[in-house]
Amino acid sequence: MDVAILGGTGDIGKGLALRWAVDTRHQLCIGSRKAEKAARMVDEYESELASRDVNANLSGAENPQAVVGADVVILAVPPYYATDTVESVAETLPEDAILVSPAVGMSREDGGMRYDPPPIGSVTEHVRDATPAETPVVGAFHNLPAHRLADLDATLGIDTVVIGTNDDAKDTVIELSEEIDGLRALDGGPLSNAPEIEALTPLLINVGMHNTDLSHVGVRFD
Amino acid sequence: MDVAILGGTGDIGKGLALRWAVDTRHQLCIGSRKAEKAARMVDEYESELASRDVNANLSGAENPQAVVGADVVILAVPPYYATDTVESVAETLPEDAILVSPAVGMSREDGGMRYDPPPIGSVTEHVRDATPAETPVVGAFHNLPAHRLADLDATLGIDTVVIGTNDDAKDTVIELSEEIDGLRALDGGPLSNAPEIEALTPLLINVGMHNTDLSHVGVRFD
Repeated sequence: MDVAILGGTGDIGKGLALRWAVDTRHQLCIGSRKAEKAARMVDEYESELASRDVNANLSGAENPQAVVGADVVILAVPPYYATDTVESVAETLPEDAILVSPAVGMSREDGGMRYDPPPIGSVTEHVRDATPAETPVVGAFHNLPAHRLADLDATLGIDTVVIGTNDDAKDTVIELSEEIDGLRALDGGPLSNAPEIEALTPLLINVGMHNTDLSHVGVRFD
Repeated sequence: MDVAILGGTGDIGKGLALRWAVDTRHQLCIGSRKAEKAARMVDEYESELASRDVNANLSGAENPQAVVGADVVILAVPPYYATDTVESVAETLPEDAILVSPAVGMSREDGGMRYDPPPIGSVTEHVRDATPAETPVVGAFHNLPAHRLADLDATLGIDTVVIGTNDDAKDTVIELSEEIDGLRALDGGPLSNAPEIEALTPLLINVGMHNTDLSHVGVRFD
């Protein structure tokens, strides 16, 4: 499978790229707004992987080139870049590609992090609104602890909840998620269930702030 | 410790009463709007406990009498009764009692449950607003699967996130929570962190709806 990770230079993108490189044989393309930045990250990830004797199928490109030929496109950018990034790849996005949104809108207040979504109710639905109607949109990876995901010495044993506009697309992303060792993917229903999933991310940060040894915590539905 | 469970006739109140009866020696008073209903529930719980050779310290009363002498008062009523119930016990509530709010505002939509809080942002803060200023208010037990909690054959192995207006009160409730076998209580910070905790409850229901064997699911921060 060809997977493009746009914003693959940030924490969540880095973690997904490294984990898929270790656990699968998928072709991974790291996308960035600048080709040089993508290339630099590919070098960094390849060094990390080589030190663990992993031969990665990694390449790097500017976002519009990164999505060419992709089966799945992960929109691993900050929420305020999400729709601009979708628009920047609209012309080169393959007709049958699945777009995956992991971004969450949050704001920091005195006592902790607050869920702070766009008016439509969630970043995931905001992304769907900016995406060509024929492209299936899936929400996933919202609640993954980014630093832990990117630390290949850390075990996971956590869940991600997957929602989508289309069941086949959702199933593909659930399978792709579960290829990561220690990650279980649960079906969260339709894309309209995004707000409660996204709101879990500030809660994880708040729990991490107030409890020793839970600073890179994920969630498990048990 | 004297614990009053108001609305102890509903699922979450029943579960807390049964679990504390089995796992602790606390005095438990089941409160209801009607004394007869409270008495009937006490009979039912005592039968259930006697069948397991547990001698419970259970009594029943109307809500205003149930809180007399209580160290901790659990407001285990539906969200739309929460503030009326607080007002009904305002005169008899001991000065140093801790009020605990587990209620969550939700609405059912086509694709799943939505978090649907009162305008202040959460039911927990709505309860605090209706409570005498000197009474510490703590939020806890929002995310517990009620039926599983009330089924003494079921194991837990799940978490509750505890928030509060006052650290001592929060610590008391954390200790009281952890006396239930299999329940871990995490510090969630101040009461203003309630919305993200409450929003987890509809997510648990949505996950339960869409995944086999997760219909009475709780959460674990791992």
